[in-house]
Amino acid sequence: MDNEVVAGIDIGGTNTSFALVNGKGEILAEGRTRTDDNPDPDPFIKKLAREIRSLLGKNSKFSFKGAGVGAPNGNYHEGTIELPPNLAWKGITPFADKLSEQLDKPVVLTNDANAAAVGEMMFGGARGMKEFIILTLGTGLGSGFVVNGRVVYGHTGFAGEYGHVIIKPGGRECGCGRQGCLETYVSATGIVRTAKIFMEKRKDDSLLRHINPADIDSRKIAEAAAEGDKLSIDAFDYTAEKLALAIVNAIVVTSPEAVFLFGGLTKAGKLLFDPLQKHVDRLIQPVFRDTFKILPSALPEANAAVLGAAGLAWKEL
Amino acid sequence: MDNEVVAGIDIGGTNTSFALVNGKGEILAEGRTRTDDNPDPDPFIKKLAREIRSLLGKNSKFSFKGAGVGAPNGNYHEGTIELPPNLAWKGITPFADKLSEQLDKPVVLTNDANAAAVGEMMFGGARGMKEFIILTLGTGLGSGFVVNGRVVYGHTGFAGEYGHVIIKPGGRECGCGRQGCLETYVSATGIVRTAKIFMEKRKDDSLLRHINPADIDSRKIAEAAAEGDKLSIDAFDYTAEKLALAIVNAIVVTSPEAVFLFGGLTKAGKLLFDPLQKHVDRLIQPVFRDTFKILPSALPEANAAVLGAAGLAWKEL
Repeated sequence: MDNEVVAGIDIGGTNTSFALVNGKGEILAEGRTRTDDNPDPDPFIKKLAREIRSLLGKNSKFSFKGAGVGAPNGNYHEGTIELPPNLAWKGITPFADKLSEQLDKPVVLTNDANAAAVGEMMFGGARGMKEFIILTLGTGLGSGFVVNGRVVYGHTGFAGEYGHVIIKPGGRECGCGRQGCLETYVSATGIVRTAKIFMEKRKDDSLLRHINPADIDSRKIAEAAAEGDKLSIDAFDYTAEKLALAIVNAIVVTSPEAVFLFGGLTKAGKLLFDPLQKHVDRLIQPVFRDTFKILPSALPEANAAVLGAAGLAWKEL
Repeated sequence: MDNEVVAGIDIGGTNTSFALVNGKGEILAEGRTRTDDNPDPDPFIKKLAREIRSLLGKNSKFSFKGAGVGAPNGNYHEGTIELPPNLAWKGITPFADKLSEQLDKPVVLTNDANAAAVGEMMFGGARGMKEFIILTLGTGLGSGFVVNGRVVYGHTGFAGEYGHVIIKPGGRECGCGRQGCLETYVSATGIVRTAKIFMEKRKDDSLLRHINPADIDSRKIAEAAAEGDKLSIDAFDYTAEKLALAIVNAIVVTSPEAVFLFGGLTKAGKLLFDPLQKHVDRLIQPVFRDTFKILPSALPEANAAVLGAAGLAWKEL
C-alpha cells in the first residue's frame, strides 16, 4: 500500500535519530532525541516509542508496519544491544523486544554498519546487487558483507567486523586489545595516527606542522593534501595501501560486484580513491582483476543511518 | 525414493574418480578413469559418460537423478572449467552442459574446495550447521565458505579463494604472481619451504638434515616432529601461527560455528592442531572468543572429493 511506512531508528552515543520512511526510501517525517545517560534503558525506550507515535499521529493516513534499528553492538539474531562501549546501558538490553512491546509492532535490529549495508541495497548504489561489501570509515571502521542478497550475520550475529581484521601482526595497538587491526590504520583516527608518525619520523615541512597537534583531524589532513602538502598526500597514500590490502583480501572470500565506501574519510574523494584504486590494481589476485568496482556510497550521509535501519524493516517485516 | 542415486565426479590432473552415491552419502558403486591429456575435452566427456552409464547399467533398480562435479577452476555459476593449470584443456570448457548432454540428466559443477564444503555439510561434520568454513591443506590451500547454509560463490563464481589471502605483504612468492599468499606458508609445500628456510638459517642439528633435501615432504617433517625434532616442531608452530592469523581474520568476516581442516597436512594431528589452537586463542578478537571450533574434517579422505561432488548434486538437483 502506498501509505505504508516504517520507522528507521539510528541509536548514537549522544543522540538517536528516527524517521518515518516509505517503501521508496523517502523520509516523510523525522525526529531526534537524546540518548539518555540513564543506565536503565526502559525510560529511553518509552520516550522513543512516544515520539514515534507522535510522528505517526500527525498524519492519519500512515499505515505503520514496524521499526528497524541500527545500534552499536546490535545483535541481529537476538535483537539485543550487548555491552555497547558508547552507551550508558550495562550488559545485554533486549531492545527490539522492549520497543516492540511499546509500539505494538514488530521491530528488527542490527549493528550500524550492517544497517548501512541494507540501506545501500534498498535505497542506494547497491540496488539490484546480490553481492557487495560496504566499509564505513568513521572514527573506527565498520563493515557489512552481503552474500546472496542477504547481510552476513554469522553464527553469533556479530559477523562483518572487518575493522578488526589484522593487517599487520604486532602493529598498532587497537581498542579491542590486540595489535594491527585495520581500523587502527584506516579510519578518521587512523589517518591522524599515520600523519603524526610521519611528522615525527620525517624532517620535511608540512602544513600540518603549523596546526596545533590536538587540532589535526582527517578533514585538516585532507585540506592540506588538497593544497599539495606532500606529507598529507603520503598519509592518504599509506592509508589507501592498507585499505587496498584489506579489500583484495576480502575479495578472495566473497567475490563481490562492488565495494562501497562510506563515512567521513571518504569525503576526501580522489585523495583517497585514486591511490586506493592504484594499490588495488597492484595487489589484486589475477582471477578477480576488474571483476568489481570501488564506489562511494550513494546514500546521503546525513540520512544514511536511519535509511539503513528503515531498509532493514522494509526488507524483513 | 530409496533407490535414487547421483554420480559424484572428482576431476584431477591425472585421474578422475566417480561414484554412485545415495542420499545418505553411501557409495554404491565407483570407478576411475584417466583424465586425458587431449587438449579437446570432448572425447574425455564421452568416455566419462559411458563409464557412468555402465555403472548404472549394473543395477537396474537405480533411479539416476544427475551428476555433481568437483573440478579445478570450476565456475559454479557457469558450469565451466576455466583455464585449469593442471589440465590439458585450454580456455573455457562448458563441462556441465556437455556432460549433461551426454548423460541426458542435469549436471552441477563447482571447484574442489567448494565441493568439499558441500560434502562436509551433507555427509560430514558440518551436518546441521549453516555457518562454517572448510580449509583444504594439500599441495595448495583451498577453501569453502558456507553462509546461511549455502556455499559462497560470489559475483564471479570464484569466491572462497582463501589460499590467496595475503598474510604477509612482500612475503613468499606465490604461483599466482603475487607475494605473501596464505598457501605459500600453509600447505604441504609451504611447510617444506619453512623447514628448508629454518635449516638454512639455524645451526642446530635436525633429523631433516639427514634426509636428501629433495625427499623432504610434509609427511617426513611430521614424522621428525613426532620424534621430538625441534626444528620440525618449530616448522609446525610457524605454520600454525600463520594459519591462526588467517583463521581469526576469516572469523571476523563470517563468524562461523566451526572451521574444518582437511587434507594431507592435517594428518599431522596434534602437531598441527595444538599450536594452532594456542595461536588462535592468542589472536582472536575478544567478541568471537570461544564462539567456534576448529575441527578435522569428518569425511574419509579417500572419498571426500566424490562425496562432496555427490553432495552438491543431492543439494541442488
